[in-house]
Amino acid sequence: MNCIMRAAALGNRSLWFPTLNAVRAMSTSGGPTPPFTTLSVTHPANHITHVELHRPEKRNAMNKAYWSEMIECFNQIAEDSKCRVVVFSGAGKIFTAGIDLMDIAGDLLQPQGDDTARIAWYLRHIISKYQNTFSVIEKCPKPVVVAVHGACVGAGVDLITACDIRLCTQDAWFQVKEVDIGLAADVGTLQRLPKVIGSRSLVNELALTARKMYSDEAKSCGLVSRVFPDKESMIAGALEIAGEIAGRSPVAVQGTKINLLYSRDHSVIEGLDYMATWNMSMLQTQDLMKSAQAAMEKKSPKDVPFSKL
Amino acid sequence: MNCIMRAAALGNRSLWFPTLNAVRAMSTSGGPTPPFTTLSVTHPANHITHVELHRPEKRNAMNKAYWSEMIECFNQIAEDSKCRVVVFSGAGKIFTAGIDLMDIAGDLLQPQGDDTARIAWYLRHIISKYQNTFSVIEKCPKPVVVAVHGACVGAGVDLITACDIRLCTQDAWFQVKEVDIGLAADVGTLQRLPKVIGSRSLVNELALTARKMYSDEAKSCGLVSRVFPDKESMIAGALEIAGEIAGRSPVAVQGTKINLLYSRDHSVIEGLDYMATWNMSMLQTQDLMKSAQAAMEKKSPKDVPFSKL
Amino acid sequence: MNCIMRAAALGNRSLWFPTLNAVRAMSTSGGPTPPFTTLSVTHPANHITHVELHRPEKRNAMNKAYWSEMIECFNQIAEDSKCRVVVFSGAGKIFTAGIDLMDIAGDLLQPQGDDTARIAWYLRHIISKYQNTFSVIEKCPKPVVVAVHGACVGAGVDLITACDIRLCTQDAWFQVKEVDIGLAADVGTLQRLPKVIGSRSLVNELALTARKMYSDEAKSCGLVSRVFPDKESMIAGALEIAGEIAGRSPVAVQGTKINLLYSRDHSVIEGLDYMATWNMSMLQTQDLMKSAQAAMEKKSPKDVPFSKL
Amino acid sequence: MNCIMRAAALGNRSLWFPTLNAVRAMSTSGGPTPPFTTLSVTHPANHITHVELHRPEKRNAMNKAYWSEMIECFNQIAEDSKCRVVVFSGAGKIFTAGIDLMDIAGDLLQPQGDDTARIAWYLRHIISKYQNTFSVIEKCPKPVVVAVHGACVGAGVDLITACDIRLCTQDAWFQVKEVDIGLAADVGTLQRLPKVIGSRSLVNELALTARKMYSDEAKSCGLVSRVFPDKESMIAGALEIAGEIAGRSPVAVQGTKINLLYSRDHSVIEGLDYMATWNMSMLQTQDLMKSAQAAMEKKSPKDVPFSKL
Amino acid sequence: MNCIMRAAALGNRSLWFPTLNAVRAMSTSGGPTPPFTTLSVTHPANHITHVELHRPEKRNAMNKAYWSEMIECFNQIAEDSKCRVVVFSGAGKIFTAGIDLMDIAGDLLQPQGDDTARIAWYLRHIISKYQNTFSVIEKCPKPVVVAVHGACVGAGVDLITACDIRLCTQDAWFQVKEVDIGLAADVGTLQRLPKVIGSRSLVNELALTARKMYSDEAKSCGLVSRVFPDKESMIAGALEIAGEIAGRSPVAVQGTKINLLYSRDHSVIEGLDYMATWNMSMLQTQDLMKSAQAAMEKKSPKDVPFSKL
Amino acid sequence: MNCIMRAAALGNRSLWFPTLNAVRAMSTSGGPTPPFTTLSVTHPANHITHVELHRPEKRNAMNKAYWSEMIECFNQIAEDSKCRVVVFSGAGKIFTAGIDLMDIAGDLLQPQGDDTARIAWYLRHIISKYQNTFSVIEKCPKPVVVAVHGACVGAGVDLITACDIRLCTQDAWFQVKEVDIGLAADVGTLQRLPKVIGSRSLVNELALTARKMYSDEAKSCGLVSRVFPDKESMIAGALEIAGEIAGRSPVAVQGTKINLLYSRDHSVIEGLDYMATWNMSMLQTQDLMKSAQAAMEKKSPKDVPFSKL
Repeated sequence: MNCIMRAAALGNRSLWFPTLNAVRAMSTSGGPTPPFTTLSVTHPANHITHVELHRPEKRNAMNKAYWSEMIECFNQIAEDSKCRVVVFSGAGKIFTAGIDLMDIAGDLLQPQGDDTARIAWYLRHIISKYQNTFSVIEKCPKPVVVAVHGACVGAGVDLITACDIRLCTQDAWFQVKEVDIGLAADVGTLQRLPKVIGSRSLVNELALTARKMYSDEAKSCGLVSRVFPDKESMIAGALEIAGEIAGRSPVAVQGTKINLLYSRDHSVIEGLDYMATWNMSMLQTQDLMKSAQAAMEKKSPKDVPFSKL
Repeated sequence: MNCIMRAAALGNRSLWFPTLNAVRAMSTSGGPTPPFTTLSVTHPANHITHVELHRPEKRNAMNKAYWSEMIECFNQIAEDSKCRVVVFSGAGKIFTAGIDLMDIAGDLLQPQGDDTARIAWYLRHIISKYQNTFSVIEKCPKPVVVAVHGACVGAGVDLITACDIRLCTQDAWFQVKEVDIGLAADVGTLQRLPKVIGSRSLVNELALTARKMYSDEAKSCGLVSRVFPDKESMIAGALEIAGEIAGRSPVAVQGTKINLLYSRDHSVIEGLDYMATWNMSMLQTQDLMKSAQAAMEKKSPKDVPFSKL
Repeated sequence: MNCIMRAAALGNRSLWFPTLNAVRAMSTSGGPTPPFTTLSVTHPANHITHVELHRPEKRNAMNKAYWSEMIECFNQIAEDSKCRVVVFSGAGKIFTAGIDLMDIAGDLLQPQGDDTARIAWYLRHIISKYQNTFSVIEKCPKPVVVAVHGACVGAGVDLITACDIRLCTQDAWFQVKEVDIGLAADVGTLQRLPKVIGSRSLVNELALTARKMYSDEAKSCGLVSRVFPDKESMIAGALEIAGEIAGRSPVAVQGTKINLLYSRDHSVIEGLDYMATWNMSMLQTQDLMKSAQAAMEKKSPKDVPFSKL
Repeated sequence: MNCIMRAAALGNRSLWFPTLNAVRAMSTSGGPTPPFTTLSVTHPANHITHVELHRPEKRNAMNKAYWSEMIECFNQIAEDSKCRVVVFSGAGKIFTAGIDLMDIAGDLLQPQGDDTARIAWYLRHIISKYQNTFSVIEKCPKPVVVAVHGACVGAGVDLITACDIRLCTQDAWFQVKEVDIGLAADVGTLQRLPKVIGSRSLVNELALTARKMYSDEAKSCGLVSRVFPDKESMIAGALEIAGEIAGRSPVAVQGTKINLLYSRDHSVIEGLDYMATWNMSMLQTQDLMKSAQAAMEKKSPKDVPFSKL
Repeated sequence: MNCIMRAAALGNRSLWFPTLNAVRAMSTSGGPTPPFTTLSVTHPANHITHVELHRPEKRNAMNKAYWSEMIECFNQIAEDSKCRVVVFSGAGKIFTAGIDLMDIAGDLLQPQGDDTARIAWYLRHIISKYQNTFSVIEKCPKPVVVAVHGACVGAGVDLITACDIRLCTQDAWFQVKEVDIGLAADVGTLQRLPKVIGSRSLVNELALTARKMYSDEAKSCGLVSRVFPDKESMIAGALEIAGEIAGRSPVAVQGTKINLLYSRDHSVIEGLDYMATWNMSMLQTQDLMKSAQAAMEKKSPKDVPFSKL
Repeated sequence: MNCIMRAAALGNRSLWFPTLNAVRAMSTSGGPTPPFTTLSVTHPANHITHVELHRPEKRNAMNKAYWSEMIECFNQIAEDSKCRVVVFSGAGKIFTAGIDLMDIAGDLLQPQGDDTARIAWYLRHIISKYQNTFSVIEKCPKPVVVAVHGACVGAGVDLITACDIRLCTQDAWFQVKEVDIGLAADVGTLQRLPKVIGSRSLVNELALTARKMYSDEAKSCGLVSRVFPDKESMIAGALEIAGEIAGRSPVAVQGTKINLLYSRDHSVIEGLDYMATWNMSMLQTQDLMKSAQAAMEKKSPKDVPFSKL
């Protein structure tokens, strides 16, 4: 309860109207954005891209089209110099029901190949492709804020653990569902979940029993950093956080994301070396002078006009 | 308090009688199971093995016999295709007082060898052997749920951090005792404790000051994922969690444990590659079809008869 | 609130008077200790060194002198066989305002070099040097307890994440400030912060938005292991923890720090191997026998006279 | 001289006519294969693909088109189940003069971006793309035999070190040219050359002085495994080796390439673990039985009809 | 030719008679040493153990018994404080024909398991066990000198690459045979061969084409460090090298083997750190003083009586 | 013989007189250069620093002064923007006899400390310091060409394996001497030797038997890349190679050294990533344009005036 109220209070301190308008602007987007059939992409505010999982009639289940559209979508975002931050959410009643078993059954249950080795070869190819669907989120240097309401099941957990900041509504729940259908989760959850929350006993319990975890436990274990009373306030909160990020130097912000991910997978000494090698050029940005000057003049970095990146 | 009640509530939702019977069945096991002198091994339910530290008159202190019996016991469990999950607990008033200093004093305080280098050689051999006593828990692909009541001291912490899911009673406490007797903990705690809980400051404080940590702090820092009011309800809860695990595809469950441990020690990209290579054969299991079908028929995976593994 | 009271209670159980005297002794230290201009070094109790950031009139901002004095200071401490543990805090009203932008502006904003590559070369050299300012804390085998009151901004976070145990006052707050001035934090925060707290979503939010984090969130996420009502009680608490550490075998304590840091950056199996190789000599210490004997005689390890290390 | 003669002798022992015909078939290919403008792709024998660098009038210099055509070409090959092995060579008088400085001068000498950081960002993107041009050779699971005649300069060395088997003519020479034009080689040579030859002193000398290395030194240091008197005999020899590879189980061959590359970048223990996990499915191939039977019947594996992969 | 003569010359300079006697002593061993059926173990000289592959009537093919006897044999050697070095060779006409396909056909061609996943599980277990057969050679801290005459095929290459020093006769040849029978070599060759010779192109050629490599190429590529005219002189040479090793401090020799293997799999900086941690105890050996004194007195280390290790 | 002649021939093609004069200039340096007592430092040509081990009366044995002077000397060189390359050789009759046992006997044979653990602590400190004596050569970004004549024993091998390019005279020999005096080599040989030559069997033989290796074997195994008839021609050859290096862009040359060393200790994919991050700034150097222009004008890079670095 405590964290919800604080989040709401925080909302009051910020610019409320643009955010609300943004939410309104979004609500008019009635479906997927061509050329996508499973994703809707809008631009609720300057430098912010909002991606929505958009198969509400199928509980946002991930079908074959989704696996390739995600890759295309995030590759576009990575190249789009106007975008500095992404908000990701789900349309309709829940965030996502996970993979669309019916749609991909053929791939998994009747895989191609003349013998076991050749079927294995084919399956490894498929799994790698599906893994890449979520890894593009990490490869995209723009931070991704994910906002979860209602159910987040199976591949949904693979998805959100690849995002940078996780928010949820009070009615959200999370389920590492894969053992229930006879397989070890293989597109990211087992690799990323233990690195985003602090209790390994909990990770193991979730992954081995497929039990549901509700929003309060998700907050206390650190999976999400904020809980909101409902979807509307969560989207407003997500856009506000996104606004904070979009208002800062993209050189600083994207360098931060890249180095945080590098450090996750390396020793401290390796991370420091890479960081120094990274910043030996990035400190030569004009953003540093612009930001320092703004700081001395007690201005917000959001008032500084940074060049596109 | 909150988590205890929830655990209890959870209990009500599950099949209560078989669990209780199991507890009763266990309580009749009056001592160690031959050929073991320090461990009691029972089978409280289908596919579940219960291992009990069983030297209650010595506060379950770990003597020389224990070090080798653990290895033999878990090697047997790893090969036992009927076993799908292990519950580990301690007999008597506390979980364990740690190593039995009297029994192993000779090894450590009067080690063999003609000069310092040769004594060092001998000691390294001993330490590696003791480390292996706990590493067998990780090498065993079946998940291990550990249930702690009362004191868990010194080598007890090395033991539980090698298990997969940790539970405790409200009266449990934990102590990284080694600095008190003049040595850096060398059989697992310094390696595993920081990887199972989220606060490094707390890890350091515990390991450097040897202060006790009680159940509430153990829960809030993530060392345990559930706290129970007393030992009886904890064992019931442990068996219930074990039942959830035993009821799922062993191909899925054991693949999950193996890949979770692999991912702990590798970068995300390495973990994903290993996972794809693992599942290219494991997805060819019949369990996938059986489980998927059960899911579509709204059956529990526990009703599916999986082949032994 | 709960943790504050427990900490106070803990205080009562320990030797209170020497601690108070120590605090008093410290308060007479009116300024930096020659040859330092930014640090004050005192010895409030046997085996304990207290280092204070001491530029209170500049809000303990880190200037050029500071970067090199830290290295010299901790190198001295590493070699000082009388010192077994360090307490680190800030003089004046806050812990630190971070880097002294005015003083180092020349280095960063007008770097030397005839072309971009040569400027980059120079900057990499500077960044590495600054990184080393905090890495000396880890290289020093004596544990460092850091006590934060008021603001801990920018490089202050780099500093404290390199310490072993973190404490703070109720009025403390923390801010990863770097994105506000146009750069990715490059002297340690991005590498160490994710390894000292359990919620990656929170780490990302802090580093990407530069928002403040207050003491209650710092405690619940595990950044600090204890919160105190005010600076005086915090310093007393820090000295008490330091006393616990100083009273134990330095062979055990320093071996523990070194192996905890080694394990952070290695797999469990690598950490165990290093540990065995480390202890094959360290177990041959007399401290083991002395401590074991004290334990059997129900004495505190603090009553054992250990040789210097 | 010795090795040349042996290679020639080996030629006699094999099926000579098909090979010769293959060479003739190739010599009729008058230019690049649509849709490529820099590469010619032919199929000189069953299961063998021959890729030729084909800008002879420009000494096979690598222009912008080349960088992307390589990626497209090897992605096609990776998916082409009829192809089991690749021979790579250069059309015209020399293998390659390296990058086409004129064509890519704009990218490197007048890079885009509003400030140093943004130019750096752009350059990193370009470098990664160029690196990928050669990394596709490793990502393609089919072995690549490269045959070098005349000059192999600059990026040519990056190219051949990414291939699996290296052959050359007696008049071939190799030059790590990059320091001559003011840059550290950044698309593969510094990473791969030290891992393909045994003398680090020689690697350093070549990379730091840009001196030429002739075929005899290339053979004695292990860069190439065979030297041929002229281009015609080399191509015949390359096709013969390719024929040996194409005649064996593609499951065995491609698994061998993948695991050899994995082992290069991992410890022995990691490599063994991956290998076991790989072969747990691949040993279930029918090729094993077919090959074993052929071996018992004293037949060549080349007479076994393996399924496509 | 050159190296053969030098080796012979070297022989003359050493103590010839004991070596010859040793050879004679060995030649009386008419078969396997109980409890082994595939290995013969003798002690031709002080501190030297000679292990012979001993199924000459089966061309020393490796059957099921062999896989477990190797493990038992090298575990015994590792624990035998009288043994300081091992010579390994093959009885009869050739070194080894590799695995005994007939004997293990059941394991590999008709593996157990109810479905593909369970067969995979079983196969992974088998492969790991077979890998361990050769890894025990590395785990044994005593150096192993392997002496190859005639054919060394398939698993024979896995075997010798796990040894420390490789010698061969002029008539020896080596063949990575696995692709010929439809599998990627999975018990060590792909992991170790590239780390024991300098030419990666040659490694790939051998592994992908299964061609034979003769002794001169084996010498020039570094697989073996010496070639001898015939088996008798090779065994004498092997015993002489073994004698050099046995005559030095076992603390120095075994520490050298352990750290050479550690360094193979780690960065230089990691290797140096481990080395320092290793030698902080090992330099406290009396062997150092004894050896230094012998050196000053111009005595050979072989005249120094070292304590057993 | 072949390589010697080629080296001599190469000499003819280059500017001979300045080199000769340089040699003469050097020969007038009658002893160590203050403040050094064991090293002589001269500047035989523009951008070239010549460091000589200079205790000829003690066979250049390494005493206590040497260990710290090396560090000071190479730190100075690293900071000296006029120096672009280093030649390292030994004064007097041989390169070096290794450590000066008499001088450092106290450190190693009578180390300080109250018990075994404290002596170990002290020894680890000493070993690390000695390791650093050679690691400074790698940390210095300027390439180091080492020229060996006569004996290169024990620590001499540790020294030369840390250099970048190795040359020797025909009468040179190398000996990994440490096992002869009862210790595993602990200041670099076991870590670096296997990474600079291609035959692991040879490395093991040298390190385990302490046998001498002469110049022809050193050349054929790749330890040295050139052999010269005598010291005078070798120094001339070393200066000529140094001249080639000094004549190229220091941004290119030093970036090459740093990335070659980085790649040695990382996977190819890690090395490529670091390289791209390095060159994103370094490609912005004016040296690229200057060198490219010189290349188009058919000028030597040596005629280009590069800015200091």
